[in-house]
Amino acid sequence: MTELPPYRANIDPQWIDFNGHLRDAYYALVASYAIDDLMDFLGLDAAYRARTQCTLYTLELHLHFLHEVKSSDDLRVESSILDFDRKRIHVGCRFMCSRVSDPVATTDMMLLHVHQGDKPSSAPFPDEVQLQLEGLRAPPALREAFAPSSRKIELQRR
Amino acid sequence: MTELPPYRANIDPQWIDFNGHLRDAYYALVASYAIDDLMDFLGLDAAYRARTQCTLYTLELHLHFLHEVKSSDDLRVESSILDFDRKRIHVGCRFMCSRVSDPVATTDMMLLHVHQGDKPSSAPFPDEVQLQLEGLRAPPALREAFAPSSRKIELQRR
Repeated sequence: MTELPPYRANIDPQWIDFNGHLRDAYYALVASYAIDDLMDFLGLDAAYRARTQCTLYTLELHLHFLHEVKSSDDLRVESSILDFDRKRIHVGCRFMCSRVSDPVATTDMMLLHVHQGDKPSSAPFPDEVQLQLEGLRAPPALREAFAPSSRKIELQRR
Repeated sequence: MTELPPYRANIDPQWIDFNGHLRDAYYALVASYAIDDLMDFLGLDAAYRARTQCTLYTLELHLHFLHEVKSSDDLRVESSILDFDRKRIHVGCRFMCSRVSDPVATTDMMLLHVHQGDKPSSAPFPDEVQLQLEGLRAPPALREAFAPSSRKIELQRR
């Protein structure tokens, strides 16, 4: 299994909210930039997008906030291909900062390969991208590690 | 049931990504600002936070992207109290834009009332906030409408 290079984020001081920690939405922004890097890694880069009119759309995104991140923290995103099919990729990301041993947050999202035109429509990945995804697919144990993070949100009465 | 006032967002041109539409993370930012307004509405405003050292932390967030939003679109967030208990609120938001009749996205999130100090810890809502939440709680049908949006993310094989 090939490993994806981690994405390193610089925390903009404007991303810190009135609670004195990284505002929830900026974890999503950091993950979004990590996915831009993943697209480049997979060859779904600007040149590919210009040539084919194909790109990735996010269908769904879940975020779990586990530890507070402060303006003085570093932040690193480790991404994994949890699953994929002909047109979709299920990506998981762990947010790590060196002050904390566990992930400070996790996210998983479903991405769809789309041909943009007058009316965007889903499109199969080229063979070479399929092959690359095959080499990157996370082992079942890692996939399982993301399963609880992707649960339904609800209040369970005790 | 009292209705919450909608939050109206101005789409910053920098929020549009290389796909020509609103970048996924900025839906989360718009929702985050809508929650700031909700906190003010509930009386969990800056004065309350300064007086009590209590605030809301986001524990978990799900986002579903249903229609593309362009830079020329307006964007309005309608929030609902889907559920709550002594310390937590489950909020649902629909993102509406006047060009499209259906929601362009939905989000739901779990918020925790936290006393910040040397070590942040969960804290019960004051009685007056509990009472307000009671008056705002969404009817079961609306809560059900958010249930599919809060599902586990997975690829279902056909």
